[in-house]
Amino acid sequence: MADSPNCDLKSLSPLELFERVTEQGEKVRALKAGKAPKDEIDAAVRMLLSLKLSYKTTTGQDYQAGLPPRDLVLINNGTTKEEDEDFVDPWTVQTSNAKGVDYDKLIVRFGSSKIDTDLINRIERAIGQKPHRFLRRGIFFSHRDMDQILDAYENKKSFYLYTGRGPSSQAMHVGHLIPFIFTKWLQEVFDVPLVIQLTDDEKYLWKDLTTEKAYEYARENAKDIIACGFDINKTFIFSDLDYLGTSTGFYRNIVKVQKHVTFNQVKGIFGFTDSDCIGKISFPAIQAAPSFSSSFPQIFNGKENIQCLIPCAIDQDPYFRMTRDVAPRIGQPKPALLHSVFFPALQGAQTKMSASDPNSSIFLTDTPKQIKTKINKHAFSGGRDTIEEHRKYGGNCDVDVSFMYLTFFLEDDDRLEHLKQAYTSGELLTGELKKVLIETLQPLIAAHQERRKQVTDEIVKQFMTPRKLAFEF
Amino acid sequence: MADSPNCDLKSLSPLELFERVTEQGEKVRALKAGKAPKDEIDAAVRMLLSLKLSYKTTTGQDYQAGLPPRDLVLINNGTTKEEDEDFVDPWTVQTSNAKGVDYDKLIVRFGSSKIDTDLINRIERAIGQKPHRFLRRGIFFSHRDMDQILDAYENKKSFYLYTGRGPSSQAMHVGHLIPFIFTKWLQEVFDVPLVIQLTDDEKYLWKDLTTEKAYEYARENAKDIIACGFDINKTFIFSDLDYLGTSTGFYRNIVKVQKHVTFNQVKGIFGFTDSDCIGKISFPAIQAAPSFSSSFPQIFNGKENIQCLIPCAIDQDPYFRMTRDVAPRIGQPKPALLHSVFFPALQGAQTKMSASDPNSSIFLTDTPKQIKTKINKHAFSGGRDTIEEHRKYGGNCDVDVSFMYLTFFLEDDDRLEHLKQAYTSGELLTGELKKVLIETLQPLIAAHQERRKQVTDEIVKQFMTPRKLAFEF
Repeated sequence: MADSPNCDLKSLSPLELFERVTEQGEKVRALKAGKAPKDEIDAAVRMLLSLKLSYKTTTGQDYQAGLPPRDLVLINNGTTKEEDEDFVDPWTVQTSNAKGVDYDKLIVRFGSSKIDTDLINRIERAIGQKPHRFLRRGIFFSHRDMDQILDAYENKKSFYLYTGRGPSSQAMHVGHLIPFIFTKWLQEVFDVPLVIQLTDDEKYLWKDLTTEKAYEYARENAKDIIACGFDINKTFIFSDLDYLGTSTGFYRNIVKVQKHVTFNQVKGIFGFTDSDCIGKISFPAIQAAPSFSSSFPQIFNGKENIQCLIPCAIDQDPYFRMTRDVAPRIGQPKPALLHSVFFPALQGAQTKMSASDPNSSIFLTDTPKQIKTKINKHAFSGGRDTIEEHRKYGGNCDVDVSFMYLTFFLEDDDRLEHLKQAYTSGELLTGELKKVLIETLQPLIAAHQERRKQVTDEIVKQFMTPRKLAFEF
Repeated sequence: MADSPNCDLKSLSPLELFERVTEQGEKVRALKAGKAPKDEIDAAVRMLLSLKLSYKTTTGQDYQAGLPPRDLVLINNGTTKEEDEDFVDPWTVQTSNAKGVDYDKLIVRFGSSKIDTDLINRIERAIGQKPHRFLRRGIFFSHRDMDQILDAYENKKSFYLYTGRGPSSQAMHVGHLIPFIFTKWLQEVFDVPLVIQLTDDEKYLWKDLTTEKAYEYARENAKDIIACGFDINKTFIFSDLDYLGTSTGFYRNIVKVQKHVTFNQVKGIFGFTDSDCIGKISFPAIQAAPSFSSSFPQIFNGKENIQCLIPCAIDQDPYFRMTRDVAPRIGQPKPALLHSVFFPALQGAQTKMSASDPNSSIFLTDTPKQIKTKINKHAFSGGRDTIEEHRKYGGNCDVDVSFMYLTFFLEDDDRLEHLKQAYTSGELLTGELKKVLIETLQPLIAAHQERRKQVTDEIVKQFMTPRKLAFEF
């Protein structure tokens, strides 16, 4: 190590810094135990303090012996007060800001790239169609290597889509539809195979569930996913509990990933502790493995190097940062990613919609009346306290949940812009804005329910049977 | 916690003690940080020291923060000098005693039961045959719940056998045959199904091997195992890499075990560290799962509660202590065990025979000449330095490797006893004893090679195909 410890510390990852601090701490202890000269001990202690400072600057956390850094989960909102920090990991999304998580900061901290106008234009040129409203409105806002996917597509090289869901209860809410609506669009415009992972094993490990119940949820959720309109000839849906026991390629990729990721790494990325069960600790490899085409020999004819594109909410990125880190070491291409923002809870954008709190969510099983009542009663409003004030000062679309939902579900750009102006100017009242949302969601959910009724157990079985799809490899 | 910390500490496991020390350490730090009254701090420090002492007494190790105890791996040979300690875990067996590991102490430390004359007599009554020489001579010396297996057998309730092998290289040595020779005998006398696990995934994780190579070793090793004479209608041999992807029951049991074992536990049992890959950390569940009959729905017709009996070398016991701990929590019967001693290296009983050191082993591929040369050149002798001294004082069978090997392979009890007396009295010379061993092993290995030649790839494939066996469940 150089005398000045800061010279090369900026390039180190939090975990590497953690290991440097630990190492230096041991050195100090050894010097003290060996009764080394005082100036030598002092120098070593100074370096230790300096390393600890670098660690704190980089991670925002104090060094704690034996506790590696949690990777990138705290996103500071520009102040130093703890209550102003965003917290994002695959299990929790929390911010104190009513506008929601600061996504630009997330891009910087996660090291991904912004989906900018250039990229959206390039997608439009490649597919010869208007990009999806989720792209136009920044709902899918971040990516990794989407350029490579477009390069491949323009050179007539194939790729495939991979997305997934953790089936925690029978009822899905409208927020759960976001990745599937977008994935369906991607599949249509690019005409590529799609695999959808249902992590029933994850839910068994994390929740108080039997494997049978988790598997049942997976099949029930598959019905809602299928009701989004996926093409049975181009889509394979699988439950981990099932597919792991029927695939010759999946477990081999899982064990390859597991060989190349240490406990220190998953501790840093996911915050696991020594008291966590070994199932949780090794699970990230199971979410990683479908990123490699050899996990699906029946679809890709055993081919190893088909590039993968993963549309998902940004909170799933830690799994795929890990996957991209491992990929070259096991001779596989890194998966590309498209990241969405979180779907806000009815109560506001401080947290994402959760299936476990019925009042935070609009479920795909809700009746028109339930939808109306929930929106009127619970949707956080950016309007003013009285009609008079509202007419005078206008409402705030940045924090209004009804308006946010409309950006997700109202296809007409002009109408959305008009609503925004009318609400901001005070011309449109909160109740009127909520009425537009109710009238948008009611037919959308009714149509979903109608399509879901058509999805028989037999159709689910077909989607979930490992088989060749309508593509040659 | 009570004021006197020692009152209930004797009943605590090393891991529980470790957690108590850690907890008390944190309490002391909190008191100091909070500037608590001096007498309160002093009392807490006294309790901490007392807890650390209990920890050391129980585990034989000093408490180290962040490093939970390794469970039961150090077996003190009755002295306190470090170099006199036996070390036993699934990867290493080391003792400084030329007679080998002290197995009686191992029974006490592992908490298993000795296979005593009563049990051997009960087995003889149950099967109506003379017990195998491995039982008569204490080569299988320890068990767990063998009485329950005999109860079940006497009540016409079925059970099954499970053993295994880690296929690390193409060549197996004679020591590898011990569990298979014994398992074959058990299968014949009890007439029960047998499953044999080849942990090619384990070898991929621990060694510098590709999955393809590990799988190839598994199939090659299967030929040697089949050459022991197993009945194809009663035996299922499986590679993890293969079977995990073809079984509907195996992965479910794996994930169930993985949910009920923490990293702290595998750290304590197997000595894993934070730098180990997550594949190693979760692997013990894969060796555990075949202990449950629902891992083999094709054999047991989906039945969950068929009791399992595992013959194995004692170094594999940590896996099955873990399995027995988990079993009741996932509603499964605990597997019973029969433990063998280690097969000594040619150089002496301080360590077990290892396939990676060619001179420590007699391989199943060795020619008669190689067998003769290795035994004459490398087999550690308990004889005296000169013929005169040997005639006068006699040889020492307790440390003589040729004699030890004969206890494994010479069937005739009277002849073995005669050899022992003649060698101990000095009547029989080292060269003569070695000659008996050479003449015992040469035909045995030649016959094995002959049988192995008959084992075609097609036969291997049949043994390794998941299927119903010749038993009704």
